[in-house]
Amino acid sequence: MNLKHYLPVLQWAPKYSRDQATSDLVAAVIVTVMLIPQSLAYALLAGLPAQVGLYASILPLVVYAVFGTSRTLSVGPVAVVSLMTAAALAPLADMGTPEYIAGAVLIAVMSGLMLTVMGILRLGFLANFLSHPVISGFITASGIVIAASQLKHVFGIQASGHNLWEIAGSLLASLPETNIPTLLVGVGALAFLLWSREFLKPLLVRLGLANRSADIITKTAPILAVVVTTLIAWWLNLDEKGVRLVGEVPAGLPSFTMPTLDMAIWSQLAVSALLISVVGFVESVSVGQTLAAKRRQRIDPDQELIGLGTANLGSGLSGGMPVTGGFSRSVVNFDAGAETPAAGAYTAVGIALATLFLTPAIAWLPQATLAATIIVAVATLIDLPALGRTFRYSRTDFGAMLATIVLTLVHSVEAGIIAGVALSIGLFLYRTSRPHSAVVGRVPGTEHFRNILRHDVELCPKVTFLRVDESLYFANARFLEERVMDLVTREPELTDLVLVCPAVNLVDASALESLEAINERLTDAGVRLHLSEVKGPVMDRLKGTELIRHLGGNVYLSTYEAWQSLTGRTALE
Amino acid sequence: MNLKHYLPVLQWAPKYSRDQATSDLVAAVIVTVMLIPQSLAYALLAGLPAQVGLYASILPLVVYAVFGTSRTLSVGPVAVVSLMTAAALAPLADMGTPEYIAGAVLIAVMSGLMLTVMGILRLGFLANFLSHPVISGFITASGIVIAASQLKHVFGIQASGHNLWEIAGSLLASLPETNIPTLLVGVGALAFLLWSREFLKPLLVRLGLANRSADIITKTAPILAVVVTTLIAWWLNLDEKGVRLVGEVPAGLPSFTMPTLDMAIWSQLAVSALLISVVGFVESVSVGQTLAAKRRQRIDPDQELIGLGTANLGSGLSGGMPVTGGFSRSVVNFDAGAETPAAGAYTAVGIALATLFLTPAIAWLPQATLAATIIVAVATLIDLPALGRTFRYSRTDFGAMLATIVLTLVHSVEAGIIAGVALSIGLFLYRTSRPHSAVVGRVPGTEHFRNILRHDVELCPKVTFLRVDESLYFANARFLEERVMDLVTREPELTDLVLVCPAVNLVDASALESLEAINERLTDAGVRLHLSEVKGPVMDRLKGTELIRHLGGNVYLSTYEAWQSLTGRTALE
Repeated sequence: MNLKHYLPVLQWAPKYSRDQATSDLVAAVIVTVMLIPQSLAYALLAGLPAQVGLYASILPLVVYAVFGTSRTLSVGPVAVVSLMTAAALAPLADMGTPEYIAGAVLIAVMSGLMLTVMGILRLGFLANFLSHPVISGFITASGIVIAASQLKHVFGIQASGHNLWEIAGSLLASLPETNIPTLLVGVGALAFLLWSREFLKPLLVRLGLANRSADIITKTAPILAVVVTTLIAWWLNLDEKGVRLVGEVPAGLPSFTMPTLDMAIWSQLAVSALLISVVGFVESVSVGQTLAAKRRQRIDPDQELIGLGTANLGSGLSGGMPVTGGFSRSVVNFDAGAETPAAGAYTAVGIALATLFLTPAIAWLPQATLAATIIVAVATLIDLPALGRTFRYSRTDFGAMLATIVLTLVHSVEAGIIAGVALSIGLFLYRTSRPHSAVVGRVPGTEHFRNILRHDVELCPKVTFLRVDESLYFANARFLEERVMDLVTREPELTDLVLVCPAVNLVDASALESLEAINERLTDAGVRLHLSEVKGPVMDRLKGTELIRHLGGNVYLSTYEAWQSLTGRTALE
Repeated sequence: MNLKHYLPVLQWAPKYSRDQATSDLVAAVIVTVMLIPQSLAYALLAGLPAQVGLYASILPLVVYAVFGTSRTLSVGPVAVVSLMTAAALAPLADMGTPEYIAGAVLIAVMSGLMLTVMGILRLGFLANFLSHPVISGFITASGIVIAASQLKHVFGIQASGHNLWEIAGSLLASLPETNIPTLLVGVGALAFLLWSREFLKPLLVRLGLANRSADIITKTAPILAVVVTTLIAWWLNLDEKGVRLVGEVPAGLPSFTMPTLDMAIWSQLAVSALLISVVGFVESVSVGQTLAAKRRQRIDPDQELIGLGTANLGSGLSGGMPVTGGFSRSVVNFDAGAETPAAGAYTAVGIALATLFLTPAIAWLPQATLAATIIVAVATLIDLPALGRTFRYSRTDFGAMLATIVLTLVHSVEAGIIAGVALSIGLFLYRTSRPHSAVVGRVPGTEHFRNILRHDVELCPKVTFLRVDESLYFANARFLEERVMDLVTREPELTDLVLVCPAVNLVDASALESLEAINERLTDAGVRLHLSEVKGPVMDRLKGTELIRHLGGNVYLSTYEAWQSLTGRTALE
């Protein structure tokens, strides 16, 4: 049981059928075709040699098939994580140097360790702290930064920078050095990819293909762009015309890579590795959950941490870069009919074969083609209408989203995500520290009590019913003291105050001290303090405290009971 | 009006009467007598020359009288803040060097700026995040560290360290070098102070003094110890016997001190200054509130920030150390009958006179006497029973308290307070991320609904009422999705699910997305989603969202209404 929990492969492998194998194989072939250009492109985006992307698409897929719980998630390099890797490594070494590559390997290993440990400690809930507006804003802003960073490859110029201003400035400065053959290849690839996204599927359907097949073929369009531009580059000897190609890629499978043990570098990369882990995990889990729900399957977020963690360890130890579950790839895997994680393992075999035999061809692939595939891929990530939706619903959520976007664009991805998380937690705490509270009265003829300012309700001058709409804890304990004393000062005839508590889900030690202080001050002022509708778990705690022992009044099960007892009126009145 | 708000002095000064002046003068004399040894002792504790403590007890008191809102708070150096100052300066310079003194001045100035800005921005609520268990644990642990750090003066040996282990190790190592005359003075002063705390008051009452006067005289016992040991030291020439004395103190009033403008030092001390500000503010506000409540007065926490901020600016700019409202001193001021902040200004005159005329005598004061007054003062801060009380009430609060105490003792005051705050916020978020939820049923014959596991209630097989006991926000949005889908899977006959929301005080953008997803999935599964008892402010928001437009079911004002409508039963059944 426990072993099956930690090794999900044991749940499906013993019952693996020939039918499933066929479905998985078909899906694997399609995903392989799609993954080859993606691996190369995201290695380029991360500033790494092409083979690092390929290595990250072999062992991690096999490991995830053993430890992961999603049946259709396709792991490998993804855009946002690759951008974050590049940003993390920038202060450490120059792009492409051995130190830079060793840093990428180290981030994969650290991220793998972090995710695995979080999984074993069942800390999957931590990912919840990336609120929806923050993650959505972060992905939109990252998409913009990524697209901008790839323009240099399309123009064949040198540019650098890790935020929009740096990149834009650097691009403009070297725009006069644009290489025309590169630009032709880049714009051509871009035009083809955009065209295929809009028009290829309808065309294929009109040509008689089934809807699903047309969809899948459309998604593999990048491989066509890769093949065609590679052939053109080889045929016209484009490297002699200044077009940057991928260049020589060592053929052969990855070998074991020992990560550096230099603790100074570990501690320098720790925060980045943590952020990459959490962002990768959130992205992966949301893809996994969406796909699982469609087939009424479940994924286990804590085991997913272990699945992704071991996959990253596998990546780092075989010379690869950080990986996670990719959206477009997983959807293709799902649509192509993958039924078990074995499809991932078969994909790994496909990539391994490519690494063994296709590297001479890959050497002729123009970088501009890869840049074009990245730009088209990340364009789908940019969701500007979400800004408007969030603004209309909640100004505070919008604030967190905007801060994330702006900081990601003008400062760095790490600053963006940290500010977003800190701001959403801070705003939540701020809101709960000034809770909504309402004096309530009885809705005539019912046992129901509502806000006297919003509803036409019965009141009793000597008894005030105060409903507090928040858990009572340290951040709002003083607020409650002030609210109650303010009420008492304003109602000189008051003899009884009922604290109506259906929304109080917690009374922590600080709030308990405040309630004791309130009870004492009210007793001094000749007012009895009562409680009503105290939740079971809260009451269990309060029993036996000073507060209940010295409470001026009573604890009532329902507010109506308190109303009957304190005002002497019955339900018939 | 606005001017009166920012200058509370304008509220009381125009009506200042001769009677009030008399009361204030009497209180000022008593507080001056008490403040002289305290100023010297806390300067010693912070590793600063004696005059720095005196300077911090002149201008700040005058400034606070103008800007502060408490009528009886006595500001000046206090134990915990002095310890934190010493800890902040340790990595910067050696004790007593000009750089060290300049550092203390800078902390006062920075802390003054921070508090004033927080006051103008009305950020007083930030202090709420120091939960009661954390602040109580922090003060207890600081008290222990302070007492331990003063033992070296009692034994006349050299020792150093900023946590209990370092101090204890250092003390034990140099214990053989104990100076016997110092030990006699120190233990003598300690014994006298402890005796006077226990027995002086009853003795004075038996001798015919009024209870209040006896109380006040008891609290000024330290000055007696100071006078007697100073005379002994002078008479017996104790400095020649190896007893460390306060030594020469420059006579004369403080002059304007320009803080350093070296930004490297500013940024090095920024975190410490912030912590000192917040801790000092919390201590001061709680003293101020306790005293104000006794006379049915109010203090304004945001204006208090400005009062303490300007007092610290005054301290730093006149060569003093960080100050805040002290507990014992303020209580004496209150008991001695101070009626307005003018008492503080008169105290400042008293200290100024001492600085002008008493410094030759102070030179003969043994440091062991000051150490004894510190030890006896901080002993009252140590509240170990609070540990047991908190443990019995709440394990999580106890966890935050224990972490604060342990880290303060074994690491440093800053680590203790930061860990405490981070842990209390983290634990609160964790608790709200796994909210309590309950399936509820109708209490027979009433309109009241309670947990089916705790109460004997009516149920309906086709309708489930799920009450969620927490605001819905990013940290628990996914939890809700899982809880609802789990319920639906377990009840195949279900046709209607009512989300009972009296405890939902907030639905943020992340939770809205989750509710929309839940509604969609339930609709697919043939179950209608209803809401009941949605709070007014929450409903205002939800109106006009996709959720309400596409809701499978209805929104009911009360759960009973939903019950009647969905089960077709009436109140008479």
